[in-house]
Amino acid sequence: MSGDNGVRVSVVGLGMMGSALAGAYLRAGHPTTVWNRSASRADPLVEQGARRADTIADAVAASDLLVVCVVDYRALYEIFEPVREALDGKTIVNLTSGVPEDARGAARWAQSLRASYLDGCLLTVPPAVGLPQTLLFYGGPAEVFDTYESTLKVLGGNSVLLGADPGVASLYDLSLLGILWSSLAGALHGFAMLTAEGVPAAALTPFVGSWITHVVLPSITGAARQVDAGRYATDISTVGLNAAGLAKLVEASRGQGIRPDVMVPIRDMLRERAGSGHGDEALASMIEVIRRPRAAAS
Amino acid sequence: MSGDNGVRVSVVGLGMMGSALAGAYLRAGHPTTVWNRSASRADPLVEQGARRADTIADAVAASDLLVVCVVDYRALYEIFEPVREALDGKTIVNLTSGVPEDARGAARWAQSLRASYLDGCLLTVPPAVGLPQTLLFYGGPAEVFDTYESTLKVLGGNSVLLGADPGVASLYDLSLLGILWSSLAGALHGFAMLTAEGVPAAALTPFVGSWITHVVLPSITGAARQVDAGRYATDISTVGLNAAGLAKLVEASRGQGIRPDVMVPIRDMLRERAGSGHGDEALASMIEVIRRPRAAAS
Ligand SMILES: NC(=O)c1ccc[n+]([C@@H]2O[C@H](COP(=O)([O-])OP(=O)(O)OC[C@H]3O[C@@H](n4cnc5c(N)ncnc54)[C@H](OP(=O)(O)O)[C@@H]3O)[C@@H](O)[C@H]2O)c1
Ligand SMILES: NC(=O)c1ccc[n+]([C@@H]2O[C@H](COP(=O)([O-])OP(=O)(O)OC[C@H]3O[C@@H](n4cnc5c(N)ncnc54)[C@H](OP(=O)(O)O)[C@@H]3O)[C@@H](O)[C@H]2O)c1
Repeated sequence: MSGDNGVRVSVVGLGMMGSALAGAYLRAGHPTTVWNRSASRADPLVEQGARRADTIADAVAASDLLVVCVVDYRALYEIFEPVREALDGKTIVNLTSGVPEDARGAARWAQSLRASYLDGCLLTVPPAVGLPQTLLFYGGPAEVFDTYESTLKVLGGNSVLLGADPGVASLYDLSLLGILWSSLAGALHGFAMLTAEGVPAAALTPFVGSWITHVVLPSITGAARQVDAGRYATDISTVGLNAAGLAKLVEASRGQGIRPDVMVPIRDMLRERAGSGHGDEALASMIEVIRRPRAAAS
Repeated sequence: MSGDNGVRVSVVGLGMMGSALAGAYLRAGHPTTVWNRSASRADPLVEQGARRADTIADAVAASDLLVVCVVDYRALYEIFEPVREALDGKTIVNLTSGVPEDARGAARWAQSLRASYLDGCLLTVPPAVGLPQTLLFYGGPAEVFDTYESTLKVLGGNSVLLGADPGVASLYDLSLLGILWSSLAGALHGFAMLTAEGVPAAALTPFVGSWITHVVLPSITGAARQVDAGRYATDISTVGLNAAGLAKLVEASRGQGIRPDVMVPIRDMLRERAGSGHGDEALASMIEVIRRPRAAAS
């Protein structure tokens, strides 16, 4: 293979995700060097044509582009601090999950070593690495992203540079993950209610798709507009009405002997909003409560 | 108008929703009688051709089919107890929101008066009443639903009898509402994080649709299958990994001065599940924690 595919890549960290990243580069024909703390995890990739780096210094020397995916940022520093001098002029693309401050700290660290740095987040699972629709967020300098854009897109066709702030990928990532976690927790709560009455969870499935597409999604995008405008007018679905609905849901759950924990804070934040004179506003105005921490946060 | 549209309907309760119901019957050509505690709310409907019932006894006498939509079940009894004898042989379709036990109690009450009873839930807002795709759930006897099916579908083409248990409509309704409330709360949490860093909430919008369609929805339907099977195998997204992710989200939120309340119970229930030796299971296994109440529920 040739052209763009000639870009040499070293993949550092060969856990579930790192192995999928290296596999994608091998399939795309990139000369791919691999390194992992526990060396045996490189074996299947070496069989597929990867070059094994015996030391992290080898891995750094082999390529200008270092793609890193390890458990956390502490592991990143543990791996690279011993070879810090060798990072001068290299480009580190860090796909390790963290919080925005982790990413910003790593960008400062890379800058101090005269390495280029992009912080990325994979919005996917290992089997979907390398697909055209697979989403990755990046934050960092546009020059760096542009230089390696086609190489980065080997990992997912939908690779997006969100901004120059290295923390921005994690910020968007956590926001989308929060939607996943809260939706799924809400669905599991519903499944617990249904199954408590002998109704299978899958009985709800025929209704969930259209509910999510036609009700949930427009509610979320509509809320985004209201939040940005700072205006929460509605003549349909008010904070007060929904607080009452949530109180019913909590009550029904308790009546079934089910833990209402997922729903209680939503009820309470809506009640708090209603209690401060905003009961007639749209649900989106709950954000004002989320923004305002209490003295005694849980 | 004639045929099915000849079915006489009395709509009792003319709040935002009841007025929309009566409007749909008028547009469909049904002879429609209307009653509301505060009589003036009938005025716009009378202008559109509704017959005004001066008393609830009038409204009950005017039609065999009584469609009721009031604030809660207490209001239902307050309205109809004074005319209980007149309900013999009538059909009450109650679209008032409540919990499953409310519906079951009302069905017993109706039976004691020899009235037929369906308990329904409108999964929509007033402006969408009467559309072909509008979803309504019903619970109660199939004969009653079948007798009035075409008349009920005037309120929404997607009207579904879920079962003979009068509580079942509310059970499904609360389950879907729970998904809406939790998803929206999760999204608002994300918007609070984004806007705290100067990123507009709408910046997430281009990613939300495909995230919800390709990640959230399959996670929910997959979880339903796992819950019904009682098997929570995964080799990708475990309770342990997600508990760690949620801990990061909570930590990042706190770092921004944002209340993590929506996310804390999800983190805690996943931690509890991991702590009891189920950290390698799929997220869906969190339902086992929801099902098992603690001694001191919040
Ligand atoms: N799996 C997913 O679905 C997924 C999805 C999106 C994002 N991510 C993110 O991707 C990253 C990696 O996840 P994963 O699923 O690949 O995890 P994993 O399978 O548990 O792999 C963890 C990797 O980190 C390495 N590591 C841990 N501590 C280390 C240290 N002190 N020094 C050197 N290496 C160390 C491990 O090396 P050893 O083999 O030597 O232990 C291994 O390569 C995480 O940040 C995760 O949040 C994962
Ligand atoms: N609006 C929605 O988007 C929506 C969506 C789905 C389901 N629902 C459900 O539909 C039902 C009605 O909601 P809505 O939006 O129409 O509420 P609403 O506009 O507040 O109207 C409430 C109705 O209840 C009547 N009422 C209250 N207490 C009464 C009493 N003690 N005796 C007699 N009548 C009484 C009111 O009569 P007065 O005019 O005399 O006060 C009014 O007709 C609720 O259960 C709600 O949860 C609403």
